[in-house]
Amino acid sequence: MNNIEYKNGKLYILDQTRLPNEEVCLEMKSLEDCYHAIKLLRVRGAPAIGIFAAYSLALFHGNNIEKAKEYLDSSRPTAVNLTWATARIVNASEQGKNPIDEAIAIHNEDIEMCRKISEYGLSLLKDGDGILTHCNAGELATSKYGTGLGPLILGKEKGYNFHVFCDETRPLLQGARLTSYELEKCGTDVTLICDNMASLVMKKGLINAVLVGCDRVAANGDTANKIGTSGAAILAKHYGIPFYVLGPYSTVDFSTPTGDDIVIEERDADEIKTMFYEKPTALPQTKCFNPAFDVTDNSLITAIITDKGIVYPPFDKNLKELLK
Amino acid sequence: MNNIEYKNGKLYILDQTRLPNEEVCLEMKSLEDCYHAIKLLRVRGAPAIGIFAAYSLALFHGNNIEKAKEYLDSSRPTAVNLTWATARIVNASEQGKNPIDEAIAIHNEDIEMCRKISEYGLSLLKDGDGILTHCNAGELATSKYGTGLGPLILGKEKGYNFHVFCDETRPLLQGARLTSYELEKCGTDVTLICDNMASLVMKKGLINAVLVGCDRVAANGDTANKIGTSGAAILAKHYGIPFYVLGPYSTVDFSTPTGDDIVIEERDADEIKTMFYEKPTALPQTKCFNPAFDVTDNSLITAIITDKGIVYPPFDKNLKELLK
Repeated sequence: MNNIEYKNGKLYILDQTRLPNEEVCLEMKSLEDCYHAIKLLRVRGAPAIGIFAAYSLALFHGNNIEKAKEYLDSSRPTAVNLTWATARIVNASEQGKNPIDEAIAIHNEDIEMCRKISEYGLSLLKDGDGILTHCNAGELATSKYGTGLGPLILGKEKGYNFHVFCDETRPLLQGARLTSYELEKCGTDVTLICDNMASLVMKKGLINAVLVGCDRVAANGDTANKIGTSGAAILAKHYGIPFYVLGPYSTVDFSTPTGDDIVIEERDADEIKTMFYEKPTALPQTKCFNPAFDVTDNSLITAIITDKGIVYPPFDKNLKELLK
Repeated sequence: MNNIEYKNGKLYILDQTRLPNEEVCLEMKSLEDCYHAIKLLRVRGAPAIGIFAAYSLALFHGNNIEKAKEYLDSSRPTAVNLTWATARIVNASEQGKNPIDEAIAIHNEDIEMCRKISEYGLSLLKDGDGILTHCNAGELATSKYGTGLGPLILGKEKGYNFHVFCDETRPLLQGARLTSYELEKCGTDVTLICDNMASLVMKKGLINAVLVGCDRVAANGDTANKIGTSGAAILAKHYGIPFYVLGPYSTVDFSTPTGDDIVIEERDADEIKTMFYEKPTALPQTKCFNPAFDVTDNSLITAIITDKGIVYPPFDKNLKELLK
């Protein structure tokens, strides 16, 4: 099954917290189910959250769609696609349209967007390239192809052979559990590494480009993405490797001037110390700092690849150009 | 108990693979026990390996001390202290000395060395500083105080209050399991982070210095240490934060001209995919690259702090100066 499926009036998801060991399908039966599916990362990846939230709100808005929107929006404060998608459902509803048609439209638009992003991204790569990925921005995070992984998945379809090194992406291991899983499934050569091995892999000359997705791009190009992205960007700069951010143009938030204006979600310490581990990795009293995202300074980004085209620095000027 | 104890003719270790959840003492009964204790990281940290290997060889060399030395030396090929310590035991034996007295001398010298390193390191820090650590170079990795953690542990004794951020250090989590454990035990303020969070913590201005140990320092200052060290050094340089390498002067290997001449040990994929995890983090067929160390270029190092003094660049010249 796909990560999100709307069929016969019912909404299903593939529970991404159970991958890669189990492929479990869950039916959503209430707005609360949907809220928790986002909050607990059963559905994750900015575009997938948008698609899912659209279906969720269309199906379960009850009597007060504004209040239902606000509730859903609070499940992941950093993902701009979430509020963007739920706003479209509210607008459609206010205009007397069937909100479920709007959700289906958002879903289909995402597939088309991902294909375009993947094609633009692929134009910057060549057969045989070594690629570093961080977190998961593939089909599981979107609809089809993905954003950060899109050029790799589309490239595989077109016969390219990439050698992908995949950061495991602590604490929640989206790179290990999801990216290496997706790339294995489509037959791409993939090698899993711990996040702290990226420097060595780059130094050995095994990486020709770094591809990452994005959760929010500020008007000046500063990019919020999974924690660790800014570190990978600094390493890429140090070793002279291109660093590409890929995402739908809707991820650019012109109301956010710079990365300093992006609120970083902090998550529970148990994700670091106990989740996934058989035994706790530190003493019960040990404090953890667990930011879910960081901001990559625009000076570290070679290009931002959107469905409307490839944007090079200066980003503040060139991101706006695409609005035209 | 201490990490290594020689008492009434018997050799004991604290099994570091069981920390922080269990404090298990093991008695060594054969050279094979000792070999596996090093190989399986029950004893780890370059100076501790040296001390332990010295006792091991002194107690269990059998009829052929040269062959026993060679066998022990093969347990961790990157640790120069191992071959240095076993060579001292062989020399002592050839000179008709009691090898166990030589092992005790190595142990006592290490305590004195660590105290000196810690004092030199502390002279570069000030009360209230935020410190980033990677891996574990504390009392568990040495005899007392430690190298990388020495200034923090000695500083605590002297009333300094540091705010330590501790990289968990994947894949084997020495930072979480050992460093945060040691610092909690001595009452230091410590916050555990995933390795990929170091960039954000630095960007937030929370880090005044990075302190790491070392497994081997080449003649030009290039430093082999736990995988991820070079990445932390590149981040520190990017953010303008001093990066200090701490270790006994015996870790400088003048027969190794540069970092390119250091062989990096590669370890098993299961350490990444399954060790510590309740369920595998990736598909069985997924390849892993698992280097245990990386080399930090000397251009990224602010100073190398040894028991003979603090060495600043140019390291090729200034490391040799201390020989005099």
